[in-house]
Amino acid sequence: MDKITARAENFAQWYQDIVQQAGLAEHSDVRGCMVIKPYGYAIWEKMQQQLDRMFKETGHENAYFPLFIPKSFLSREAAHVEGFAKECAVVTHYRLKNDPSGQGVVVDPEARLEEELIVRPTSETIIWNTYKSWIKSWRDLPLLINQWANVVRWEMRTRLFLRTAEFLWQEGHTAHATRDEAIEEAEKMLDVYARFAEEWMAMPVIRGFKTAHERFAGAEETYCIEALMQDGKALQAGTSHFLGQNFAKAFDVRFAAKDGSLQYVWATSWGVSTRLMGALVLTHSDDNGLVLPPRLAPLQVVLVPIYRSEEEQAATCARVQEIADTLNQAGIRAKADVRDTQKPGWKFSEYEMRGVPLRLAIGPRDLEQGTVEIARRDTREKWVQPLEKALEQIPAILESIQAQLLLSARQRLETNIRPADTWEDFVALLDTRGGFVAAHWDGTTETELRIKELSKATIRCIPLHNPSENGKCVLTGRPSKQRVLFARAY
Amino acid sequence: MDKITARAENFAQWYQDIVQQAGLAEHSDVRGCMVIKPYGYAIWEKMQQQLDRMFKETGHENAYFPLFIPKSFLSREAAHVEGFAKECAVVTHYRLKNDPSGQGVVVDPEARLEEELIVRPTSETIIWNTYKSWIKSWRDLPLLINQWANVVRWEMRTRLFLRTAEFLWQEGHTAHATRDEAIEEAEKMLDVYARFAEEWMAMPVIRGFKTAHERFAGAEETYCIEALMQDGKALQAGTSHFLGQNFAKAFDVRFAAKDGSLQYVWATSWGVSTRLMGALVLTHSDDNGLVLPPRLAPLQVVLVPIYRSEEEQAATCARVQEIADTLNQAGIRAKADVRDTQKPGWKFSEYEMRGVPLRLAIGPRDLEQGTVEIARRDTREKWVQPLEKALEQIPAILESIQAQLLLSARQRLETNIRPADTWEDFVALLDTRGGFVAAHWDGTTETELRIKELSKATIRCIPLHNPSENGKCVLTGRPSKQRVLFARAY
Repeated sequence: MDKITARAENFAQWYQDIVQQAGLAEHSDVRGCMVIKPYGYAIWEKMQQQLDRMFKETGHENAYFPLFIPKSFLSREAAHVEGFAKECAVVTHYRLKNDPSGQGVVVDPEARLEEELIVRPTSETIIWNTYKSWIKSWRDLPLLINQWANVVRWEMRTRLFLRTAEFLWQEGHTAHATRDEAIEEAEKMLDVYARFAEEWMAMPVIRGFKTAHERFAGAEETYCIEALMQDGKALQAGTSHFLGQNFAKAFDVRFAAKDGSLQYVWATSWGVSTRLMGALVLTHSDDNGLVLPPRLAPLQVVLVPIYRSEEEQAATCARVQEIADTLNQAGIRAKADVRDTQKPGWKFSEYEMRGVPLRLAIGPRDLEQGTVEIARRDTREKWVQPLEKALEQIPAILESIQAQLLLSARQRLETNIRPADTWEDFVALLDTRGGFVAAHWDGTTETELRIKELSKATIRCIPLHNPSENGKCVLTGRPSKQRVLFARAY
Repeated sequence: MDKITARAENFAQWYQDIVQQAGLAEHSDVRGCMVIKPYGYAIWEKMQQQLDRMFKETGHENAYFPLFIPKSFLSREAAHVEGFAKECAVVTHYRLKNDPSGQGVVVDPEARLEEELIVRPTSETIIWNTYKSWIKSWRDLPLLINQWANVVRWEMRTRLFLRTAEFLWQEGHTAHATRDEAIEEAEKMLDVYARFAEEWMAMPVIRGFKTAHERFAGAEETYCIEALMQDGKALQAGTSHFLGQNFAKAFDVRFAAKDGSLQYVWATSWGVSTRLMGALVLTHSDDNGLVLPPRLAPLQVVLVPIYRSEEEQAATCARVQEIADTLNQAGIRAKADVRDTQKPGWKFSEYEMRGVPLRLAIGPRDLEQGTVEIARRDTREKWVQPLEKALEQIPAILESIQAQLLLSARQRLETNIRPADTWEDFVALLDTRGGFVAAHWDGTTETELRIKELSKATIRCIPLHNPSENGKCVLTGRPSKQRVLFARAY
């Protein structure tokens, strides 16, 4: 196994080392596209399952819409096309043919599409084109639909999970009779995301909304959850958009209201993606590898037998297998690694690298004395205790790990939100401490862009329920009524 | 609700009516691509969950590989590119720009890809290109991976679920140290598919292998399961391929064997798709709508309250809701439809159309007498019985429906395999009875193609464990050692 670069030495390299060495993902030979490896995909599946459960509990159904979007659809909503046109994969032909020169295949020029198709960067347009025939009356509303899908945005600089040309995500697309109901939906789904981040990923987030400049292309309001990574950079972990009637108007989706009038439908859309995998790594892992919150760990407890003789091997392997079975029956994801092709030390490093929350080791002396050695991945504590007692306590230990990870991350988040009232303080905080800087801003996009240019910090969000406070913009000195959160971000 | 065309009148239209009116899927405005609607997707999710469970039980893990395949990858395996080149969606550009004439957007000619990318029609090439770096030693084998994904094959004539340009599927891709182990894997996964078809879809299948002409492009052997639809046409429901060392050679994937020698890896791939949704409809449904086997039904029991007065409404709604809760707690997927915007008669038709296996209706008299009216979707039987007894029996009734659907389909399959020894009989059977015709064939592709041209029947499969029998080819009279199964097919 290769060594992981220390965070203090090179944080970006540390991240890449973990993603690769823990078997989460790797770059493919297709520019910007990643391969999600089995262990990484197993974690993503756990995320999917829980999110899907939360979507269904809040009344949503899944459906599936086409991968391709006719070019003309994308153009219907002006801000939307402006936002996505520069990063589109475009299908222009539908056939290959043998190269006349006899070498391989070439695109058949006669198989040119009349209208180019865009590989979906997001599905508002194709979905609202479909909703046109689904929504006729107030009885058809609300329409609460989610889609699990792959999307493509042609990114020039990519990083595994954090920014890739193709990524996996879910996109909710809902339709409502009233403005208020749509806003309520957008806020409800933001809350679902925040609860998922905190309760499952053990990743505390700030709930807020984006400035006009940072809004989703086509939205009237973009809500977001923002998290803080270990290197002090912010990461946008999920967004929920109130789309107003923009897409309903672009695709002429109207419904007969109870009073008989014909009205445009109100919309939301919301999504999280495999980017959350990157956020998970950047929140909890350490210089020894991945650290996983137990609720998302594909494997929660690994058991390793320690032996010298064949007799000891038989006895310890039988015992760890028996314990693994007992744990599995109790609903804990446990595995006994009884391979004799690898030494215990190798296995210890391997499962440490993979972030398995608890490791149990059993040797001949443990068999005699009825004990077990337990090692916690998050704190790296180790202790020996009676096996029976250990088995009883494992569910509680897993819960404690989950809680402790959230607590640590929350402390880091809370101590890394600092006010700045002068431009010097603002820049100094960003340069020396990182984290979020709460500062006054004059509310103009011009200033927002100028601050970004000068400091590389963007406005991550205007927190929900943000307190009013009179102040002066940190850059221009113009009057401001509230602080907003700036940070350098992923 | 529109009426469904009767099967006897127009079978193809009947199919389309059911798919659309039961809310399974519809054509999108993107040529050849369908929208899978929430109810259809809910059934597909049930299929996915069970298949995924079976894959994991047989030791497979999920992963995810890129949507795009560089054109040159496709060309590496000669038979493979030959099989897929004519139906490829080709990405040639990665950016749009504003139309200089001021109208919408156009493809930016300066954003042309150096090498075109193909939207995956299947993933052998991109996966084997990745396996090259994953497989070094016998210790890395077997590699047992599955992917849930969308794929695109540019079909000119499409039918919802049965043949669409984009479809959803799973594709297993495994790597093995020996030929025997790979063949065993291909056969094991064929068995998984057959068990899934029979135990979950209640759809009996014939297990066999394809002729050389019908093999997957790049396979040495293609195993398949073939089912029989109600109109006497066959449907290929799943395939499992033994790929030999073809892809290992094309992508230079070799491993150090235990004896130290460097050997090419042996491969399989196997897949089923949303086509199974079409097969499900065509196997069980009737002139009143969809019929679903209980194991795949998103909703197994629907409860409808019958009332006139407000008082009756309150009482019957409370009772059906209470029963639905009881059933849900017992692990049965039940729902009380207490909407007062629709009449009971409308609800009855709606759930009949959607193939809900059991309907329970409760009116004021049932409240008084402690009874319930039960209606079975498959047999359309109705009876009244004491509620308590009914609740006790519902699990058994659902199992009986599942078993009865399989039995009926099996009887239809078995009575529709008929031998033919002369060309006249062969054609007459296809024209008058449909189904499978077991006939001798001289083993040449030439004869196979000629028979197809003359009769529109193809060789569906050579059944596994096919008995030897000396005979003469039904077309050419040349000697043959076994009968093979012909049919007209979807």
